[in-house]
Amino acid sequence: MPDIFRPLRSFVGAFAVLAIITVATPWSEPVQAQPDPLPSWNEGAAKKSILDFVGRVTQKSSLDYVNPELRVAVFDNDGTLWAEQPAYFQLTFAIDRVKALAPQHPEWADKQPFKAVLESDVKVLAESGEHGALEIMAATHSGMTTEAFNKTVAEWLDSARHPRFKQPYTALIYHPMLELLDYLRANGFKTFIVSGGGVEFMRVFAERIYGIPPEQVVGSSGVTKFQLDTDGKPSLVKEAKVEFIDDKEGKPAGINRFIGRRPLLAFGNSDGDLAMLQWTAAGDGPRFMGIVHHTDAEREWAYDRKSNIGKLDKALDEATAKGWTVVDMKDDWLTVFAAQEGRAVKE
Amino acid sequence: MPDIFRPLRSFVGAFAVLAIITVATPWSEPVQAQPDPLPSWNEGAAKKSILDFVGRVTQKSSLDYVNPELRVAVFDNDGTLWAEQPAYFQLTFAIDRVKALAPQHPEWADKQPFKAVLESDVKVLAESGEHGALEIMAATHSGMTTEAFNKTVAEWLDSARHPRFKQPYTALIYHPMLELLDYLRANGFKTFIVSGGGVEFMRVFAERIYGIPPEQVVGSSGVTKFQLDTDGKPSLVKEAKVEFIDDKEGKPAGINRFIGRRPLLAFGNSDGDLAMLQWTAAGDGPRFMGIVHHTDAEREWAYDRKSNIGKLDKALDEATAKGWTVVDMKDDWLTVFAAQEGRAVKE
Repeated sequence: MPDIFRPLRSFVGAFAVLAIITVATPWSEPVQAQPDPLPSWNEGAAKKSILDFVGRVTQKSSLDYVNPELRVAVFDNDGTLWAEQPAYFQLTFAIDRVKALAPQHPEWADKQPFKAVLESDVKVLAESGEHGALEIMAATHSGMTTEAFNKTVAEWLDSARHPRFKQPYTALIYHPMLELLDYLRANGFKTFIVSGGGVEFMRVFAERIYGIPPEQVVGSSGVTKFQLDTDGKPSLVKEAKVEFIDDKEGKPAGINRFIGRRPLLAFGNSDGDLAMLQWTAAGDGPRFMGIVHHTDAEREWAYDRKSNIGKLDKALDEATAKGWTVVDMKDDWLTVFAAQEGRAVKE
Repeated sequence: MPDIFRPLRSFVGAFAVLAIITVATPWSEPVQAQPDPLPSWNEGAAKKSILDFVGRVTQKSSLDYVNPELRVAVFDNDGTLWAEQPAYFQLTFAIDRVKALAPQHPEWADKQPFKAVLESDVKVLAESGEHGALEIMAATHSGMTTEAFNKTVAEWLDSARHPRFKQPYTALIYHPMLELLDYLRANGFKTFIVSGGGVEFMRVFAERIYGIPPEQVVGSSGVTKFQLDTDGKPSLVKEAKVEFIDDKEGKPAGINRFIGRRPLLAFGNSDGDLAMLQWTAAGDGPRFMGIVHHTDAEREWAYDRKSNIGKLDKALDEATAKGWTVVDMKDDWLTVFAAQEGRAVKE
């Protein structure tokens, strides 16, 4: 199933201010060393590798110094910046939309995979596989203007709650990764999301919760059609046609098309990120490749090689073989979710 | 014929420094009024409309004040930032490539449209129309890695000379528009190219000559394929398959997909820009829509409603009807090309 899933919400107060400040200075010069730019990261090899790398590429006296305009940092979203269990959040959104739209679609009562969604028949839904998921995505992500879609996503994020944590989905963002984004931007990096998720879905929340503006979000997309109404008012209507899948081998292609520079740093968490990590690693000079390894069943989830969602198998082998940084969530992170750290979450 | 054309080159010295400075401060706060930020623009309605608009949206006391992160400015390239006569520069590049590659393609001697190119038979070439142009583009823009393509474009820009002006194509950029780009960036705007030209073609020169970084260039694209060689080294190979045409109704779609915000200011020069201008105009609050009207046969070219290249007909009517800013090149520009103004051009 293509990764075309994921959501938003409402971090105000301290974080919003931080986001504005950091967005305001994307290419700023390296700041002076602060007490500890990554306080939510336990001391260990992962934290050390990040601090060492950023130091090497930003200190002018360093042989590995990299000009600010080349400091491109790319992050997968699902499982890297926020959680992705028990299902990609964007898929959960789509399923909720099927339920909301069902009264207008009486035919769904007898039509799979919609019937399975409406009856909460997880087994049949799972059996519908990629084809079923695409049908659900097409039915819920098309036939409206881009503006109407954005509004629907925003409303869902305001009201939906995660089944395990009973929090808004946007509360399930990783506090250590927010610190990393801030730290990179303070050191002149421009931060991008490069995700299999839908680009329009992610943009509804990416700036607010990550400080990543819409033009720095790369994702999967459907075709949109420009049209003028009878008053000459233009709109873009979302069509049920996939335009680009920004996953697996699509990620380097997406980076090439949207960003046009090879990343200096890339972070992912699954085999879907392997091509992006390989593409990053193949650049000249120093490069940083990082993987979030989900090892914490208590605070989050523990899964890797055998998971249907966020399968991490080949990329874990390659990371080990090539000495990429593997973040052990249980050992390396002092806190996991932003909300647990006390960031203001609007309920 | 889809606009998939256009080139680069080498402004060093003062301009390079300017470009670095402006790239370094994309969201900077409005600077104090300078003596005249647009000295290459004659006093008149066009210049006044630009200065008035920028003042209105950047002065905090203004009712029309717009936050810096929303100050998105989009520019067409061919005919708006640089010349496009007697043929789109990217098409000229493609034709030069056909000639350079001909020894490896003996079959082209008898195959149209290649035969016409090799025999400089303009009439037959013109008759081959859109289909012929697409064949030429496919033959010259695919079958190599993205890196090899970029190198070819850079080499062409170094060596090719415009048939009328005997200058590198990158010298045929409009000095008044460079001033406008600088002025907008100094006032907190983020400047983007939104062009029918090939995104990879434009990125070879856009940062150097316009100060517009690769990630702010939106254009047409072909499919690229990620592959690993036997040593595990990844590359992206350009395929002979159109992925997206960023022209006409494709421009608002491209803006939506790449930028994700509606422009505050848009500048074009042809009917190919009409949808982008309409999309911009339909936003809330103040918006600026500008058109470069080619009226100067002596210093540049004079063409509009009947031109095959850069046809300006419906957009000119709509601009007049709606009060958009139409720049009369002959009357409104004190100088036309950057080179004539004495910007350092590397020969």
